[in-house]
Amino acid sequence: MNYKAVLQYEGTRYRGWQSQGNTENTIQGRLEAVLSRMEGAPVEVHGSGRTDAGVHAAGQTISFHSSYGRSAGEIRDYMNQYLPEDIAVLSVEEAAPRFHARLNAVRKTYVYQIWNSPVQNIFKRRFQTRVAGSLDVEAMRKAAGLLCGTHDYRAFCSLKRFQKSTVRSIQEIRIEQDGPEIRIFYTGNGFLYHMARILTGTLVEVGMGLRDYARMPEIIRSRNRADAGRLMPPEGLILMSVEYD
Amino acid sequence: MNYKAVLQYEGTRYRGWQSQGNTENTIQGRLEAVLSRMEGAPVEVHGSGRTDAGVHAAGQTISFHSSYGRSAGEIRDYMNQYLPEDIAVLSVEEAAPRFHARLNAVRKTYVYQIWNSPVQNIFKRRFQTRVAGSLDVEAMRKAAGLLCGTHDYRAFCSLKRFQKSTVRSIQEIRIEQDGPEIRIFYTGNGFLYHMARILTGTLVEVGMGLRDYARMPEIIRSRNRADAGRLMPPEGLILMSVEYD
Repeated sequence: MNYKAVLQYEGTRYRGWQSQGNTENTIQGRLEAVLSRMEGAPVEVHGSGRTDAGVHAAGQTISFHSSYGRSAGEIRDYMNQYLPEDIAVLSVEEAAPRFHARLNAVRKTYVYQIWNSPVQNIFKRRFQTRVAGSLDVEAMRKAAGLLCGTHDYRAFCSLKRFQKSTVRSIQEIRIEQDGPEIRIFYTGNGFLYHMARILTGTLVEVGMGLRDYARMPEIIRSRNRADAGRLMPPEGLILMSVEYD
Repeated sequence: MNYKAVLQYEGTRYRGWQSQGNTENTIQGRLEAVLSRMEGAPVEVHGSGRTDAGVHAAGQTISFHSSYGRSAGEIRDYMNQYLPEDIAVLSVEEAAPRFHARLNAVRKTYVYQIWNSPVQNIFKRRFQTRVAGSLDVEAMRKAAGLLCGTHDYRAFCSLKRFQKSTVRSIQEIRIEQDGPEIRIFYTGNGFLYHMARILTGTLVEVGMGLRDYARMPEIIRSRNRADAGRLMPPEGLILMSVEYD
């Protein structure tokens, strides 16, 4: 039987999503360890995509096969019983035989959370990045509008290795402000390595007055990482949801 | 010069507010260490009251004397620079010479946060206590109304030692529900040792159907700790604010 599951995790103490040799400190490694224990045989977990070390998820989606023979709800409860306290399975459901969490994903939403204040928010500090100087959110919104669309986003990507295409579609970049809390939502069909964090760094530099919002199209056209903004730290980034047809 | 400061902390890794020999792992110890360093001489910090090991504060208030000779804003910045990342000073202001954070406090508000769901909320888990079985919030509200007033709250108190009076006034117990999140706000002129956590345990037992809300006056009258509910864990409790005339 093929299953789809939605889960949350706090990425703070993990080396990211993927297992590379040492599976102990990765989210995927923890999931596979628990599911393999349940199954009594190795289980491979497919995530909708990797999250970097320190990045969180409120709605990461995975697929895996199991012949455990219990209900989806029982699998969820088993996983929650044996997973560490910073990983929680929200739901498990039976999926079509060919369903694959990465290959079938059509849209993802990330949020980057900024705490714009001279004083740290100690309650949310693990899920926010603090920016001390005040930000011009209206200028950031104008820049965000210019960064949407279907483009080659190579300038906003840390290339680790050869990638076939760096063209992606971003449907929306929405910025919400609630006092010192600024939340930037990114919805697109896919995100390149570090893309949400470099887009955020570019928007923050616009907000600081270090960049003109009108120059965003030039940065996209440059296809040059050096022309875009800084890479923001991982702790502010949360994978919110993954959508499937 | 006498100062009043408002601060936040995550109590998770501390042994509580007060220094008792080992000041390293207490909030008060951390504050006094930083202020003494600033002052170049020992500084004594008075908190509005103690918080137990693991309990948090969003608006703890302290008073201290300093002859540092800088502005209140500079003292705040100095403290935030040297305090650990789980303690933050929101504000420092000059206070009347006789102002004392504990002796002059007239009202305090605590909140106890419950996550009422079979699945853990991994993002807020350090600031909530999870209750798996569903709770009857309306019954809890009826019980809460009966627990307010001016009473001898000895039944809701873990007596560590002789206390002159166990009479306190609770002005309001307000219960907010937002999906699986239940927040119980307590406002009163003072709280006995463990009182907010034992009141919460009693309300939770009403919510679980283990107790009849109508019996609350009997528990108060009993003045017997054994008649009240369980002591809830510290991580759900937050000291929200302290008021002064």
